[in-house]
Amino acid sequence: MRTEILCVGTEILLGNIVNTNAAYLARQCAELGLTSYYQTVVGDNEERLMEALKIAAQRSELILLSGGLGPTEDDLTKEVCAKFAGKKLVMHDGSKERIAAYFSARGLKPTDNNWKQAMIPMDSVVFENNNGTAPGLAMTAGEVKMILLPGPPNELIPMFEESVKPYLQKLSNDVILSQMVKLCGVSESAVETQIKDLIDGNTNPTLATYAKTGEVHVRVTAKAESQKEAQKLVKPVVKELKRRFEKDIYTTEADVTLEKAVVDLLIANNMSITCAESCTGGLLSARLISVPGVSEVYKAGFITYSNKAKRKLLGVKKGTLQKYGAVSEQTAYEMVKGLLDETKTDVGIAITGLAGPGGATPEKPIGLVYIACNIKGTIVVHECHFKGNREKIQESSTSYAMMLARQCLLEYISKVTFGKKE
Amino acid sequence: MRTEILCVGTEILLGNIVNTNAAYLARQCAELGLTSYYQTVVGDNEERLMEALKIAAQRSELILLSGGLGPTEDDLTKEVCAKFAGKKLVMHDGSKERIAAYFSARGLKPTDNNWKQAMIPMDSVVFENNNGTAPGLAMTAGEVKMILLPGPPNELIPMFEESVKPYLQKLSNDVILSQMVKLCGVSESAVETQIKDLIDGNTNPTLATYAKTGEVHVRVTAKAESQKEAQKLVKPVVKELKRRFEKDIYTTEADVTLEKAVVDLLIANNMSITCAESCTGGLLSARLISVPGVSEVYKAGFITYSNKAKRKLLGVKKGTLQKYGAVSEQTAYEMVKGLLDETKTDVGIAITGLAGPGGATPEKPIGLVYIACNIKGTIVVHECHFKGNREKIQESSTSYAMMLARQCLLEYISKVTFGKKE
Repeated sequence: MRTEILCVGTEILLGNIVNTNAAYLARQCAELGLTSYYQTVVGDNEERLMEALKIAAQRSELILLSGGLGPTEDDLTKEVCAKFAGKKLVMHDGSKERIAAYFSARGLKPTDNNWKQAMIPMDSVVFENNNGTAPGLAMTAGEVKMILLPGPPNELIPMFEESVKPYLQKLSNDVILSQMVKLCGVSESAVETQIKDLIDGNTNPTLATYAKTGEVHVRVTAKAESQKEAQKLVKPVVKELKRRFEKDIYTTEADVTLEKAVVDLLIANNMSITCAESCTGGLLSARLISVPGVSEVYKAGFITYSNKAKRKLLGVKKGTLQKYGAVSEQTAYEMVKGLLDETKTDVGIAITGLAGPGGATPEKPIGLVYIACNIKGTIVVHECHFKGNREKIQESSTSYAMMLARQCLLEYISKVTFGKKE
Repeated sequence: MRTEILCVGTEILLGNIVNTNAAYLARQCAELGLTSYYQTVVGDNEERLMEALKIAAQRSELILLSGGLGPTEDDLTKEVCAKFAGKKLVMHDGSKERIAAYFSARGLKPTDNNWKQAMIPMDSVVFENNNGTAPGLAMTAGEVKMILLPGPPNELIPMFEESVKPYLQKLSNDVILSQMVKLCGVSESAVETQIKDLIDGNTNPTLATYAKTGEVHVRVTAKAESQKEAQKLVKPVVKELKRRFEKDIYTTEADVTLEKAVVDLLIANNMSITCAESCTGGLLSARLISVPGVSEVYKAGFITYSNKAKRKLLGVKKGTLQKYGAVSEQTAYEMVKGLLDETKTDVGIAITGLAGPGGATPEKPIGLVYIACNIKGTIVVHECHFKGNREKIQESSTSYAMMLARQCLLEYISKVTFGKKE
């Protein structure tokens, strides 16, 4: 069913709030197999909302609206939809009772404008609001279905889960299944070149690539009459991607991040990790610590911003810093070596670089970053050249470090496993 | 100028990413005095993008587009806009050189599809991309102006600030002048209550409040025929805000963050700072280190995630951890005490708390965080109760810590200054 999302609210138009409702509803549509081609935002304005409804009704069969169901004069979504559909507003006794109960439970008295929220367009289906006073509604305007939802996410989301999703499931015939294949250490254009035949040769499932800093995600999406059939379409394509990219793929699960993949690998192999950061200032540790359950493998980390800190905390030699500078292969090597010597951890990562804006020299430009990984004494150092502002260079550095840690870990594990087999 | 925002990207339509670009661009429009009535999202689809452009061109004078400027076949925003405007695509030598340089700096070779990014519609204005390969563009289709921007926020935002904002400012007759007054340590509703008379009593300048984690920003915006006249309107209102909020205001400059205000205060008073972090895992240090020039005052920091790390690196007593737990006033106190004893720094901040999702007990709920500040031996510990998920609790903790550091610093400095005067 061709669906679109129409969010009503001047605060979105002014950029005062980010439209997370649209993203939530879009994900729900994708899961329900509702094809969504457009999202629109209009302010709390009768004329422009009416225009937006007309446009939406011409190109879609289902319109999901959010916002503008509040008690104030500004809120006019329901009124405009009723007008658009040519339906009268009538008092809904159930909603009236719920509003009365909502206020009395809080020891408050409803004001006159609160009863406005109990008025509904004739022949509407009412979705109860367990977290506020505005009921949700399903109604039709000619051939077009409209679902009206309250704006606050803490009202919209539970209402959708509890009432709207079951209502929509009954309307839909198709199932849409998406699988994410996430890669690191390869560029988007390289991935695209390598799977051009798959992109061009497939219409169901479809393939699409998305670039993230240091990562590429490939989404494989199939449409079928059942979950099982959709899986049958997706599976061989994912298998082929795995064959082509092998170890560049760090997960095929939508909610697994690169840092989670690294932490999972560490937990599975009973190995601990620590970081020594200069130009990233704690961001690498913070990315690891964003993973719930990381305490099993991460105990401590160091931010060694000054030369003195590199010497005192990690044992980098004064001569090394003098001869090669803080941003050098040699310093990165000694940082990551000292890091494991000091902490007796299994895996260490060190980053030293120039994030800018100051500090560049002809030999050492902004964006020059050395990233070192030490696994039980085996050390590698990579020289990287990143672009962008300070923030972007820091982000690229942590992504690269995460990728390098994963790569070294996989190599180490495969050797150890191989050794055991002998 | 009637403006609308048109974001292109199937990943937004599928709900894979939240459309923060629309919110950013909307705020920019509001600041530039561009009236924005609509936001639209379409997928990477020629037909539907063309439809969306037609609709937008009928109702708006300026269309801000984002997304779909990448090197892959999916990316077709530029091609469709060129077709819509009836303009041929031509090679732009400057962009071609930039792309070549971008790849060579990384030791990579561009693939054929990368050159597609250097093709631009005839007569376009090119905005350089300092953080990626897709140039931004300004072009016209009949009477309608279109601005094309790359999708990744870390490319779009710097490009907008550096090039697009000045370009748009020239198009407008009126001068819009905004001054930001940034506060910390007060809630948005408290600020709003205290300036309700100013908000209601002023139409030029207007006042608007924005809530950020741990901060409130008040924007004072005036419209006038000249910069000078606009300044005349803004100045007395900013003066009045300073009178009402005094030390809660940490800056009146748009590009000064709270962390920069803290770093500036440290530099001005020749004092150094260090951090010991548990649940924030490096984010506090990273916020300080995001400030260019921080190396004058920040040398080293510790991430003491485990109890052992708190003992070994900071000298927290075993008995304290056993008796009160890692998340306690006592542990925070000993962390920040040990931090200065170890490092001989002037200012220390320590954070220990429960960011969740696991680890809660009836006495210690998720969101309980202790934040301690030590200035040359004078220690304060604050108990905080933050709401939200792991990420939100971490963010609230670092913001609070920054606010606390500033507060303690101001107090210390005022005492020292007072002492000197005697």
